[in-house]
Amino acid sequence: MKAAFLRKAGDLVVEEVPLPVCTADELLINVREVGICGSDLHYFNEGRIGDHVVKAPHILGHEASGVVTEVGSRVAGFSVGDRVSIEPGVPCGSCGLCREGRYNLCEQVRFTGAPPFHGMFREYLCHDPRWVYRVPDHVSFTEAALAEPLAVAHNAVHKARLLPGETALVIGAGPIGFSCIEMARAAGASIVIASEPLAFRREVALRVGADKVFDPASGSLPEFVREATGARMCDCVLEASAADTAIADAVRCVRRGGRVVYVGMGKPMAAIPHAELLKKEAVISGVYRYVNDFRPVIELLAAGRLHPETWVSHTLPLAKIGEAIAIANDPARDKLKVMVTT
Amino acid sequence: MKAAFLRKAGDLVVEEVPLPVCTADELLINVREVGICGSDLHYFNEGRIGDHVVKAPHILGHEASGVVTEVGSRVAGFSVGDRVSIEPGVPCGSCGLCREGRYNLCEQVRFTGAPPFHGMFREYLCHDPRWVYRVPDHVSFTEAALAEPLAVAHNAVHKARLLPGETALVIGAGPIGFSCIEMARAAGASIVIASEPLAFRREVALRVGADKVFDPASGSLPEFVREATGARMCDCVLEASAADTAIADAVRCVRRGGRVVYVGMGKPMAAIPHAELLKKEAVISGVYRYVNDFRPVIELLAAGRLHPETWVSHTLPLAKIGEAIAIANDPARDKLKVMVTT
Amino acid sequence: MKAAFLRKAGDLVVEEVPLPVCTADELLINVREVGICGSDLHYFNEGRIGDHVVKAPHILGHEASGVVTEVGSRVAGFSVGDRVSIEPGVPCGSCGLCREGRYNLCEQVRFTGAPPFHGMFREYLCHDPRWVYRVPDHVSFTEAALAEPLAVAHNAVHKARLLPGETALVIGAGPIGFSCIEMARAAGASIVIASEPLAFRREVALRVGADKVFDPASGSLPEFVREATGARMCDCVLEASAADTAIADAVRCVRRGGRVVYVGMGKPMAAIPHAELLKKEAVISGVYRYVNDFRPVIELLAAGRLHPETWVSHTLPLAKIGEAIAIANDPARDKLKVMVTT
Amino acid sequence: MKAAFLRKAGDLVVEEVPLPVCTADELLINVREVGICGSDLHYFNEGRIGDHVVKAPHILGHEASGVVTEVGSRVAGFSVGDRVSIEPGVPCGSCGLCREGRYNLCEQVRFTGAPPFHGMFREYLCHDPRWVYRVPDHVSFTEAALAEPLAVAHNAVHKARLLPGETALVIGAGPIGFSCIEMARAAGASIVIASEPLAFRREVALRVGADKVFDPASGSLPEFVREATGARMCDCVLEASAADTAIADAVRCVRRGGRVVYVGMGKPMAAIPHAELLKKEAVISGVYRYVNDFRPVIELLAAGRLHPETWVSHTLPLAKIGEAIAIANDPARDKLKVMVTT
Repeated sequence: MKAAFLRKAGDLVVEEVPLPVCTADELLINVREVGICGSDLHYFNEGRIGDHVVKAPHILGHEASGVVTEVGSRVAGFSVGDRVSIEPGVPCGSCGLCREGRYNLCEQVRFTGAPPFHGMFREYLCHDPRWVYRVPDHVSFTEAALAEPLAVAHNAVHKARLLPGETALVIGAGPIGFSCIEMARAAGASIVIASEPLAFRREVALRVGADKVFDPASGSLPEFVREATGARMCDCVLEASAADTAIADAVRCVRRGGRVVYVGMGKPMAAIPHAELLKKEAVISGVYRYVNDFRPVIELLAAGRLHPETWVSHTLPLAKIGEAIAIANDPARDKLKVMVTT
Repeated sequence: MKAAFLRKAGDLVVEEVPLPVCTADELLINVREVGICGSDLHYFNEGRIGDHVVKAPHILGHEASGVVTEVGSRVAGFSVGDRVSIEPGVPCGSCGLCREGRYNLCEQVRFTGAPPFHGMFREYLCHDPRWVYRVPDHVSFTEAALAEPLAVAHNAVHKARLLPGETALVIGAGPIGFSCIEMARAAGASIVIASEPLAFRREVALRVGADKVFDPASGSLPEFVREATGARMCDCVLEASAADTAIADAVRCVRRGGRVVYVGMGKPMAAIPHAELLKKEAVISGVYRYVNDFRPVIELLAAGRLHPETWVSHTLPLAKIGEAIAIANDPARDKLKVMVTT
Repeated sequence: MKAAFLRKAGDLVVEEVPLPVCTADELLINVREVGICGSDLHYFNEGRIGDHVVKAPHILGHEASGVVTEVGSRVAGFSVGDRVSIEPGVPCGSCGLCREGRYNLCEQVRFTGAPPFHGMFREYLCHDPRWVYRVPDHVSFTEAALAEPLAVAHNAVHKARLLPGETALVIGAGPIGFSCIEMARAAGASIVIASEPLAFRREVALRVGADKVFDPASGSLPEFVREATGARMCDCVLEASAADTAIADAVRCVRRGGRVVYVGMGKPMAAIPHAELLKKEAVISGVYRYVNDFRPVIELLAAGRLHPETWVSHTLPLAKIGEAIAIANDPARDKLKVMVTT
Repeated sequence: MKAAFLRKAGDLVVEEVPLPVCTADELLINVREVGICGSDLHYFNEGRIGDHVVKAPHILGHEASGVVTEVGSRVAGFSVGDRVSIEPGVPCGSCGLCREGRYNLCEQVRFTGAPPFHGMFREYLCHDPRWVYRVPDHVSFTEAALAEPLAVAHNAVHKARLLPGETALVIGAGPIGFSCIEMARAAGASIVIASEPLAFRREVALRVGADKVFDPASGSLPEFVREATGARMCDCVLEASAADTAIADAVRCVRRGGRVVYVGMGKPMAAIPHAELLKKEAVISGVYRYVNDFRPVIELLAAGRLHPETWVSHTLPLAKIGEAIAIANDPARDKLKVMVTT
């Protein structure tokens, strides 16, 4: 089979390698479509993310869908030909955090795509069936792959405790921001405001479901929100840009008693309006990946409530993954989510 | 002005009375449309509900919309001509329950329509502006009046802590059940199952947004839910029928760790599967009216996410309120919500 | 080693059997003290609890402490000689409920002591180290064994969302009721009321920490609570008796907006004051065993905040387990928790 | 009567003024004891706090107890001679925030002691009886006055969702920090760690209930916490110092999935470890005053569970309020809470 290996920062090659050999407890999956995530770009550009360092040729990719081609002898509930979405992280299942229902925080997680665990930019993969979800025929491979960023948004909206009829602000209209806009609407937000510096993406944000968009280069986001909400400010703010100003503005844009969720991860330290946080008794929740979110996301895709294909701009075959990454990496280019088919 | 007085059980007359005189802190509202609720019928048929007894000629009606025709001199934020929805209960604002944000449980509440407080089956009404909500022009008077039952459903879905992508069961497809179906969908339920004995109403339930409907006369609801959910049972159950079997089945139909909300009030005592409740660690929440729910409901109506006119079957003028009540009262008749215009 | 086998209802023998052989992933534990639980008595008297049937000679007992005598080669974090408390249930770790942090509801749980899984009325046991907790020297074997019922109470108080300065009612003053009294006080309840028909146990309830006690044979519990609380009723009710009247009274004794937790499991069906539940918007939570509760209970024992030895009345050696069960079974006898030492 | 007026920053005089005249809806209270709060010092030193500016001679003081000397003709539930604790803020009772149960965030609140509303450094006061709490005879006037800072701590512990058996870190051992230590213990924290630079206060922290204390000048607080908790870090962090390092360390000291509560208000902006917040999925809650916290605090005082007199160092009569403020203001002096008697 073919697989794309990152040998070191900036050096990616597609090579022919033997098929992986699964255990009796695994599924062999023919990968069909994989999204390129910001973290894949980070590994490609820097060769590392924090403590996760690419030391040996490494396969990236963790937003994937595929078809089951072999079912391990001890695996129940799957058949050859099943169309599936893959949750990439396999936690230990028994540490204190796993037991609390916070398996995304498990320190022993084996996360497919984060070194040293190979990812899914390849034709075949063995995976633990407990972290594989069947999808119906009318859910496309693109949608099934994008269950991953949508699961992040589902986690964010869950932590925001968004109620139907509330107003949400989403800061940053990249794939995670689009996911948050879609999910906030699915959860009943009656007004969704999106803030994004790129005009191209603001237009997509409107198509994805934002009611109002704002260009942060044009003025003060808190002032815009004040006007847009009749001085009430937003019930929930979902911050998906990790920009310094946005992190601080998130607290300024939330109403008294409102909820801020930080989804976008950037620099180690960031300044927040601390006294305002106290006076508002706002609540800030950090979001890290997803936890019990894949299943409901797939249910929503199956019910036709989410439309992630709206925010896919390019799809290239695995053989052209270098070109796909170049597109995703190019700040001068109008692009949204870039997909790789295998 | 004209007003409909219940003199005693079964005896309703429309009479001409003087316009009410508002204080400087009130709004005078020209009532435009009022829904007939099950509790109105109960007062009409029995002359009482529990401790609330009709002792003097009494005006019923608590699901109302109208137009502001006078603004008290100390009232801010309203203009003559404003289209409004009216929250009927005015709580004390300072007891322990009001302070906790549970004003619907306030023991000093003055509830418009519950004796001894006159209701809204009349042409004009004085009301506290803090419990009046402006609605935009594109929200109809019918929709603005039906914000009231929808607010009950919003309270129920809030208490059910329904998350996007979950499965909800609504038992009973009357106006509160329809409201719950709409609200569960607005909150992101990916599958809504409705149980209702009347074929006519099951069809409406499907149009309102239910994915599957069940006739409880045809078999076991828990068995139906088991099949419909692949044995997973429902994440949330919203019980809106107050039927004995339904109250017990609600616990049987919820999944382990799921949530049951009782919205329909019936007889004082009801049997529940107690051991099953414990083994499932299910949570049961009682719902009583609404609390902080009108505002988000009106936001949802303004955003076009709710369509209560789907479940209105009859609209009659105030002069024919007797006929309207007869329709609503007639078990042999295919009817949904019955509205009175003034 | 010696072990006590239940051959069929009423037929218990202590026999000599070979030591169990642990895997490299297990601990061998010398059991030191085991509490007799109501469910052990139920198995002894009936030979079954629901679907769990004693088909072969079966070892009961699931409230146990001991000393580590062998550490499997792949086990970290334990040494021979460690004093330990044992959480009896080992869940699957990967089903939807385990992933949600509700491992106590796992359908694949292997619960030590529930047929077909042998329990701890024996001298030696192999157990999964992930479900074994080290206790400091100043925590006695009795306390470490009684972490089990205390964990049930911790689960109950957690689900009751009890806040410091609130009023709690505990119905039923047996070992679970005593645990609930202790835990409600540990969580800051400023007034704890206990209801219990046996005078002997009411006195112990006062020593354990109840502020007021009530004999349900003497009148109406809701009336007593009304007087005791200045008509405010209780913030939380922890029902640990499973008596029909108590199950209904729990809802009657809770304040508007209060919380009822059902801890005691009895007959399949029970009647509750349904209309009152709705009018109060009370919340009912079912409790089943414990989930993430052992660790904090042991912390509380280590900190000297819980005193379960107060409610132990008899301690007998394993050789006299038949006598111990006879004492625990005898309704005419003044007894509290009965312990077996091995 | 005598009252202390702040005429401008640094200029405080005690003057004889007429008794206040209460309405029929008010209580006349003979103030008995008032605590000096950090915000009183801030007004004394700067003449303002943010938008609250001392423009006319102003009476400070908002932590007070007293005795009812007159009961308005429309007031029920009070008698002359009642010993009382006074909640200083009187919210509007009907805005969106009041209705949600967040009256401490009400924008129309009249807060006794914050300009332009006179405070309680005086002999007599008219107050709304709904915000006055009777205390039993065995609760001292000191304790009843200190219900105010204890209510802040109750709010903080509530927002921290602290469970019995958890580990709490309190940063800053001033009166709010002491309140938090007491309240964390009352709520069942099994280990309370306190961080405080002053040796004198660290000793008091141990007497108040801290299990371990740390001097932040001696090294890294996160490292200390790591060692003290066996690398587990704290379940909850209550930050009561408002120091820049402490605000950041709060996030570093909390465990994955833990909760940080910011109680101390300092400079407008503060830097937090943003990426760490996300990776831990920590939750941060801001605390502002108290909301529904006075009643439970008084219940806890009545039950003997809180001992605020432990952290009172000086008590002076109203005539010497200038000296009292000088003591409280003096950084070189060993002092804790300073009380003024009237």
